[in-house]
Formats: sequence, structure tokens, C-alpha cells
Amino acid sequence: MISSLLTTKTAVTLTMDSRLTDISCRGLKEKTNMPESTEGNSWSHAETVQLNGSTEDLPETDSFVQQAMAIIMEEVVKKAGDVSGKVCEWRSPEDLKELLDLELREGGEAPAQTLQRCRDVIRYSVKTNHPHFFNQLYVGVDHYAMVGSFVTDATQPSPYTYEMAPVHCLIEDVVLGKMMEMMGWVEGGDGIFNPGGSMSNMYAMNLARFQRWPDIKEQGLSASPRLVLFTSKDCHYSVAKAAAFLGIGTKNVYVVPADQRGKMIAMELEKQIRTAISEGAVPFMVSATAGTTVLGSFDPLEELADICEQHNLWLHVDACWGGGALVSSKHKHLLKGIHRANSVAWNPHKMLMAGQQCSAFLVRDKTGLLQRCHSASASYLFQTDKFYDISYDTGDKSIQCGRKADVFRFWLMWKALGTRELEHRVDRALEMAKYLAEEIKKRDGFRLLMEPEYANVCFWYIPPSLRNIPDCPEFWQKVQAVAPKVKERMMKQGSMMVGYQSHGDKANFFRMIIISPWVSTADMDFVLDEIHRLGADL
Amino acid sequence: MISSLLTTKTAVTLTMDSRLTDISCRGLKEKTNMPESTEGNSWSHAETVQLNGSTEDLPETDSFVQQAMAIIMEEVVKKAGDVSGKVCEWRSPEDLKELLDLELREGGEAPAQTLQRCRDVIRYSVKTNHPHFFNQLYVGVDHYAMVGSFVTDATQPSPYTYEMAPVHCLIEDVVLGKMMEMMGWVEGGDGIFNPGGSMSNMYAMNLARFQRWPDIKEQGLSASPRLVLFTSKDCHYSVAKAAAFLGIGTKNVYVVPADQRGKMIAMELEKQIRTAISEGAVPFMVSATAGTTVLGSFDPLEELADICEQHNLWLHVDACWGGGALVSSKHKHLLKGIHRANSVAWNPHKMLMAGQQCSAFLVRDKTGLLQRCHSASASYLFQTDKFYDISYDTGDKSIQCGRKADVFRFWLMWKALGTRELEHRVDRALEMAKYLAEEIKKRDGFRLLMEPEYANVCFWYIPPSLRNIPDCPEFWQKVQAVAPKVKERMMKQGSMMVGYQSHGDKANFFRMIIISPWVSTADMDFVLDEIHRLGADL
Repeated sequence: MISSLLTTKTAVTLTMDSRLTDISCRGLKEKTNMPESTEGNSWSHAETVQLNGSTEDLPETDSFVQQAMAIIMEEVVKKAGDVSGKVCEWRSPEDLKELLDLELREGGEAPAQTLQRCRDVIRYSVKTNHPHFFNQLYVGVDHYAMVGSFVTDATQPSPYTYEMAPVHCLIEDVVLGKMMEMMGWVEGGDGIFNPGGSMSNMYAMNLARFQRWPDIKEQGLSASPRLVLFTSKDCHYSVAKAAAFLGIGTKNVYVVPADQRGKMIAMELEKQIRTAISEGAVPFMVSATAGTTVLGSFDPLEELADICEQHNLWLHVDACWGGGALVSSKHKHLLKGIHRANSVAWNPHKMLMAGQQCSAFLVRDKTGLLQRCHSASASYLFQTDKFYDISYDTGDKSIQCGRKADVFRFWLMWKALGTRELEHRVDRALEMAKYLAEEIKKRDGFRLLMEPEYANVCFWYIPPSLRNIPDCPEFWQKVQAVAPKVKERMMKQGSMMVGYQSHGDKANFFRMIIISPWVSTADMDFVLDEIHRLGADL
Repeated sequence: MISSLLTTKTAVTLTMDSRLTDISCRGLKEKTNMPESTEGNSWSHAETVQLNGSTEDLPETDSFVQQAMAIIMEEVVKKAGDVSGKVCEWRSPEDLKELLDLELREGGEAPAQTLQRCRDVIRYSVKTNHPHFFNQLYVGVDHYAMVGSFVTDATQPSPYTYEMAPVHCLIEDVVLGKMMEMMGWVEGGDGIFNPGGSMSNMYAMNLARFQRWPDIKEQGLSASPRLVLFTSKDCHYSVAKAAAFLGIGTKNVYVVPADQRGKMIAMELEKQIRTAISEGAVPFMVSATAGTTVLGSFDPLEELADICEQHNLWLHVDACWGGGALVSSKHKHLLKGIHRANSVAWNPHKMLMAGQQCSAFLVRDKTGLLQRCHSASASYLFQTDKFYDISYDTGDKSIQCGRKADVFRFWLMWKALGTRELEHRVDRALEMAKYLAEEIKKRDGFRLLMEPEYANVCFWYIPPSLRNIPDCPEFWQKVQAVAPKVKERMMKQGSMMVGYQSHGDKANFFRMIIISPWVSTADMDFVLDEIHRLGADL
């Protein structure tokens, strides 16, 4: 059936051939030696420019896609829950380069070899959906979201205009609306999905600046006073990156001390604002964090909102990580006050497993600020003489032009699971974090950094050789070397992945992130057993 | 076999249960009325927080994924070459909202319903891989690249560190290297993949600024002189967006006139530079375009490079669209001089069909400028006490944190096809554009705007009723209304998609973009016939 279709197509185009003789036979310049892989297969492609019909064999390509899908199913989807497999198959850069033939050549490869490349890449990739992967603020991807991304990758919508992505423009609107509802923005607002939370934090900074000084868009900053913003010392590093990128300057990010639990100290914020003003600088924004990267802390939003109101500052909340708590009636209190924020960054690809990047930037403004701030009104995309309501075109809200429809997979997953199951998952992850914290407290040689209030569990492992040394600088100096060594061993054995870092005056500790609904208490116990197994001799 | 696995898992976790009684039975708060779709199926999820084992039925989920893959295969992949289907199934926003049930609810849905949603979304999405889709600077996606994105979506690497994405960090390095080789950067350079060309253009502007005034990263722009950059009037609108975003200001983008073919006039650039200096502003960058959005024009890079050298200006080339010509020995002359650029933006998702977003930003600097410009050295990701060579960690070159491994699908496609087939495709697309231009010249009622030198073919359609009116403002006023009306009709009938716009003093014309290797001369003829069919009565 398929091959008969192909024959028909060829027949149709052959009838066109007669008038094409003048342009249909241009040879390509080079005829280099082909690498071994292209010899003797049907995939060494035609050498002439033919304009009649496709140059490729569609049925063969279809069969390739089908085989590749089977590999993904077998090697990724079905192995997701398999605890017995490795989390990673560690190779040094040098070894991995040797193992994989990465070079790009003149000739192509047989489909079988391309399929083998997919297998190899999967093999040496970190298994982010393995039950023992706890390394990042995201973990694998929900199956529904994964299917959603397959659909998006196959259809390639670009939601800058309704014309190019009608369904996706509408879906983005619905999802943003629902997220706003969860934040208690009763009057709604505006927003857009971005490739990552760092980008959303940049949007916030640009919007805060534009709202106060719209002329800067046109005039630039060179004639402006020194603008200053505030964030806590535990904020994400993207705040500094944004200040550098937007021409504000990293030194104009005033870093407010955080308390022992990593929460911005409101009184210190007040102090810093007064300092900035006394220096002749102009404060314009506070970037609060709901769910810090390392400790999983939540800034006191109500207190910060009070201060922002008093000083007429834009309140942005980086809830990229902590936003997940908003779907839980039990935990949403962590973000109490978020309804007063001017803007929020919230990444469903993190706690809600919508697959990276899936990052919403939300603004409470309803006057079109987002669009006015970023618009360039390109005539080839945003024609004003279109035949439909162009308020559905979203492209002028974005700093991108083409944009992936990241929202779709989140919507599909949400539809499939329902809010209640999203809530259930978040509750379960946070309960699991508590379970792990309790276990840490029970075990010799483990020390909890602080009680978790979210899904970050931070702790030290003290090997037996150090357990009798009293807490002193020398002791912590020795502890500092433990986590990197244990990490190296776990990577090389591939038994699990847990991150580590030092933080302020705290020596290197493990930061364990719990997200997946597919992990059990047995997996928590495994982590502690395994760290001990790997580090007991240190 | 799968269900026996599941039983084992349950058995293992049940043994853990005894000590969990205190935390394993927390009821969720809400028990709202479920929508009809969740009743009577196994997908209404558990109501308690259970920590033992997964809350979901993995085998059922696997079967869902398999069915979804079959739908993608059937509805997207196999229909890609089917000319008889519609390019789009147009519905107004209001109608589409009625047709699709987009609302997000408390309860979930049965898998069958979720699969139906995938079908519906595919149905109402634009068929970007349809042979009659000529609307954007991208078209569908190559099959190999599509498979590559499926693999990436399933495995979720984030190439900020070698640890998290070993294969992808190496692949990014290889692909960037090969792209540099094609630009004639014999000594190599540096680079990174970004979500879109607009972003790459922003990188260029930030880098040009940083290279000249590294202190701005820390100090910001408020004490700096007025910095000015230059670009042609035919440049992409992202240059203005970037200037606004980076605090440079849109009025500090000096717009250089272009000639009739849309190429920046070097002498005019010289003039503008002198003007800026005489105003006390400080020029720092020229953003040239290789392949403009509307006309597909190439700025004279050699001439611009001379001027940049003379005035010590950073030369950036936005080759997002035109970069594809670099793979063709026949057409790479269009970018002659690109080896002298300081930075280049090149989107393989456009002409090379690598699937959006796949956008490379390349810098000729080899001293680590990119990293110094964007680094924030986050302690939780970029530990300096790692056990491997951290020069493979790419995260500090990026303004993002998490980042999709967009490069993989490009690499996989390139491996499968070989450079020669990429070259063949580009040659074929440009040959096809010439064929169309010739046809336009032959036909009554069609007027070519200019001879194409790339894959943009711009032309007017003049309906019979206007053909006897002489060229005068009234005539062009009437022509202005033709393209939008034809476009409306083609969208509503779904027969094809071709963009239109006005440009400078030129009334609305069609801008046809030819990329796909799956279109034939018959498809070109169809476009002209169809425009006449749709517009003959106007």
C-alpha cells in the first residue's frame, strides 16, 4: 500500500520531467572517499539535484521511526522503574570520545547504525527517571508529559501566532489562568512560557524596570540613575546573571542575609533598602525565592510584600522550584502571600515533572504591560490586517521569536492526572523527604543540616574514622573531602546520583531532592546504606 | 511478565509497611465531585499518601505510551507526505474553544480520552510537514531529527555539566566545531546552543559589550557612555528586542539603509558610524544579516568586516536563516567573509530541518570570553572539587541554567544523512526557488519582487480586475488588500500556507519559503494555481 503510493507519486512527478532537463542534473562538487558506513547500502544519497519528487524513501524512513520508537520504549520507558539497572554508566570524557564515534562526515549511515547510535546515547546518558536519581531539581519526566512532547516534536507548532499554533495558544491561556487561580490571583493576569526559570527571572527584572521607567526600552540605561534590586543570599544564581545581562550590573543586586533556615530576613531587607537610598541609588525590585535551590527554603512573602508596598518596589517571586507546593492544600501555606507578588516564575518541569523546559512567567498586571515591554511588532508575523482576533497572537509578549509549545505536555499531563493526583504526588514527595530526615536522625554517622520543609534533604555523612573528632575547623576540613569522594564513587559505580555542595560556612554536604512518585521508602534506605557503603573507609 | 514484576515490587514494599503506619495514611483534604470522565475507570487515583512503592500502574502507563506512539506514527509521520490532506483545519478561537474541552479539573481522565486529546490536538494543529506548508522560516522536521528529539525528551539530559549529560556535552563540542570549520574559522572558537536565534543575537550583543567593557557586567550601564550598534533596516526584529532587553535602548540601534535587494549599504554604515561618533555616542557593534527574514538577502560581509576592523567594532552575523547555505559548495559564497565575524547565530532548525529550537551561537574568541561574560559559578552545580575535567561543564557559558540538549537531534540527523545530503537538500531548495521564480515570470497576474538568491520567493498576485490599472498609488492600495484576503481563504480551506506582508513602500506581497526536500515542482505549480483560484474574483 505504501509502496504503491510511492509509485504513484513518482509517476506524477515523472510527467513533469520534460521541461526540467535544464535544471535537474546539476552534479554536486565533491566526491570524497566515503567512510565505511555508507558503502553498500541504500542510504548513500543521490548525487544530482532533482526537483521531481522527494529525494528520500519515505516508507523506509517510516520504518526507521517505528524502530526508533521501539528502542525508546524498551530502553527508556520500560526500564524507568528498574532499580537493578545503573543510574549512569560513567566514562571519562576521553574514554567516552573513544567509545562513541562522534565525528560528522561527508557520507551518511545506514539506518541500523543510526538506531545503534540512539541505543549508545541512551546507554551513556544519565537515567533521570531511575528511582535512585536524586541529583537535580527535576527528575525524568511524567509519561503523559513525555507523550505530549513527542506530539509537539512531531507537529512543530510555534505559538507566536494563533495562525501557526491555534490549539497551543488557547492551551497556554488556559494553563496560565489555572496557575494564577492557584496563586490566588483572583483577577487573573498575564504570562508566557519560557525556556527556563533563569529566563523568567530576567523577564521579571525587565518588566519591573519597564513598568517604572518605560522610556528605558527606547533610551537605554546610560542616562538613568543607578537602579538597585534586592534578593537573598540563598537566591538562585540566575538573578545575578539577569542583572549582568540586562545592563543593571551584578553589584546592583543587593544581597540580603538569610536566617539559619535560608529565608530572607525582612528586617535586613529594610536596612539594605535604606542603605541603597542613602547611596543615591534607586531601588526598584525585590526578588524573593519560594523554594531555594540548596536548602529548599521559602522567603516570608507576606512580610516582603509589606515592605515592597511601602517602598513602591516590584515584588517578584522565584517559585521555579517551590511553586509545586501550590497544588497541595496541605503545603501551599509555604507560599503564603504569593497573591501579592507582581510577578512569579514557576517551573512545572521541576516538582510537577512536566519535562524540561516547562517554565511559566506570570504577571499580575492586566493592562498589557508584558506585551508593551517586549513588543517589536514585526510586520511579517504580526500583521494588523489579519482576519482573526490578533489578541491571541502571543509572540510580542516574548523575547523569543520561534518558541517551543512547552505548555502542551503540561496541559496533557494535568488533564490525564487531574489536579488531585498532582497534589497527591507533591504531598507524597514531601512526606518522603520527612521520612528520609527521620532516618538520618536515627542513624550513626549521619547529620541533618536542618529539618526539611520542602523536598530538599541536606545532610552530612561522617565516616567512622571521623566520628570521634570534636566539632572544630579541622573536623569540618576533613568532612569537606567526604562528599566529593563518595560522589565520585557512586558515579563510577552508577548506583545512584545525589548532589553535594558547600554552602556559606557549611562544609560539603549531600543535597538530596525527592520528586518522583516512583520512589519508595526502600529507595530512601538504600541511599543511606549506599553512602555508608561507599564512604565507610574514608 | 510485567505484572509479575509489579507483584514483586509490591511484595518488597509491603515488608516495609509495619513501621510506616504513622505516616502512610494521610487523607487528602478535598473530595469534590469528579467530572464524568473519571468515573468507572482505574485512573481515579489513590486518595491516601502511600510511601511504599509507586502510586501508579506502570504497565498500564507503558501501554498508553505505546498507543500514543502509534497515533503519532499514523497521524503525523505517515501523513507527512500526503498532499491530499489539509495543511490546517482552521477554526476561529471561539469555535476551537468550543470544540476542545481545555479546562483543567480535579479529577483525571481515562487513557483513551487522553489519547483522543492527542488526536484532536494533532488534527487542529498546522501540518508543518505538509508539502504545501511554506509559511515560516522552518518547515516540519527531518525524521532523524524528530527521533533525536524523542530520545532527548525521554532521557531528559541537561547539558550544563558533564556529569548530567556526558554524551551531550561532547556532541555539542563536536557539532560546534564542525559548524566553525564550515565558516572557515580555521582556529576554532567557542559556542553554545540556545533556544532560538533571538537569544543568540542577545548573546552576541552582550559579548560585544563585555569584550570591550568587562566592568559593565558588575557595574551596569548607568555610568557608561551611550553605546550604539548598527544593523540594516532589513534585519530581524530581535536586534531591537535585544537592545531593549540589555538596557542599551532601541534608539541606540542605528538603522542602516539597505539597497533594493535588501542588503546593507556599506557606505551608509560608514556614514552612520561617523554620525554616532559626532553625537558623542560610542559605537561597539555591527549586526549583519545573512539571509534576511523577508527577502532572504545577504549583507556584504567582507565590506562590513573591513569597516568593523577599521573602527574596532564587533562584527556579529545573524545567519539564523542563511547559515544553511554554508553546507553547500555552490551557495556558500553568499556568506563570503563570515570567517571574519566575531560571532555568528545559525539556526539548524530552519533550512536544515533540525526541529525547533536548534540554534547555535558561535564565537571566534578562544580565550574563554563566553564563559567569563556569563559565568556566575553556582556552587551547587559547578563545584571546583569535582573528580573530572570541569572544562567539559558548559553551564557557565549560558544565560540559562537547565537547558535542553537541542544539539543531539541535529547531530543524529547529520550522522544519518551525511554532509553531502544536507548539501543536496539545500541545493535542491534553492533550485526549487528559482524554478518558482521562473514560473512567476511566465504567468499572467504574477509579479516577482526580485530574483531570489536564497529560498525566499516574494511576489504579488494581481487579480484580473486590477490587471489593466496602471501602476499608481491607487493600484497598490488595491493590491495591498489582495494577499490578506487570499490568505484568509487559503487558511479557511486549508489548502496551503504561504505568508504575506508589506515591506517598506512595497504593498502586501506573498513571501514563499522553500525548504523541504519533499516538495516537487508540481507543488510549486499548485501554489500559483491555487492563489489564482482563491483570488481571481478579487
